[in-house]
Amino acid sequence: MIKQISHLGIAVHNLEEAREFYRSVFGVESSEPMVGGNGDLLASMIKLGDSSLELLQPLGDQGPVAKFLNRHGEGIHHVCYVVDDVVAEVESLKNKGMEIIGSPRPGAEGMSVFLHPKSTHGVMTELVEKK
Amino acid sequence: MIKQISHLGIAVHNLEEAREFYRSVFGVESSEPMVGGNGDLLASMIKLGDSSLELLQPLGDQGPVAKFLNRHGEGIHHVCYVVDDVVAEVESLKNKGMEIIGSPRPGAEGMSVFLHPKSTHGVMTELVEKK
Repeated sequence: MIKQISHLGIAVHNLEEAREFYRSVFGVESSEPMVGGNGDLLASMIKLGDSSLELLQPLGDQGPVAKFLNRHGEGIHHVCYVVDDVVAEVESLKNKGMEIIGSPRPGAEGMSVFLHPKSTHGVMTELVEKK
Repeated sequence: MIKQISHLGIAVHNLEEAREFYRSVFGVESSEPMVGGNGDLLASMIKLGDSSLELLQPLGDQGPVAKFLNRHGEGIHHVCYVVDDVVAEVESLKNKGMEIIGSPRPGAEGMSVFLHPKSTHGVMTELVEKK
């Protein structure tokens, strides 16, 4: 069961430009960029109540965010929902025929996993068990 | 200034199928469908903590959600942020060169307005002043 929106991942070409946009236009501050993914992206978080925005700039042209930008241009890349137990969710979702991308792995917010958008009405979906 | 994620608008071809998907796969219930937009869509809300998902099925083939589905297929259509004063935000955003789509108008959650994605790093953005 999904509990709340943990964050919304937004793909951008230039993280510093995007951080300045969110600061000057929407009035919100973002965290210092950190390398994330498999070392193939830079991420900066913006806290908004219980949820966050995650600005994502690819490093190199081979990672999933780079490929998304090539296909779609900038925009919302994924949504991440909080779950209580990510391993149990994955087992349950597999039994329901969902396509899981890889296995749960540790990230900045906790153990997380991605579901393929073809299983989820077109929405790239991440599930995270918060630390 | 944006304060929190009010909702995430998700475009689907068939609202009843999508509601059943979110219920059976993600364990969350959605509200009874209501006609929204300019009468050109059916919407059903899923409460997730402070935010919601808004499942959107077009009625007819001329509205913005119908056009989005034709171009992109199912997926995340927009994000809506809570602001304190939507009219003041629109004035401020116009002064910053943002492209506003129309003017604030009343909706289910309160007065709201859309910003064009070409002004916002590719993200179709709605701002709402909650009732």
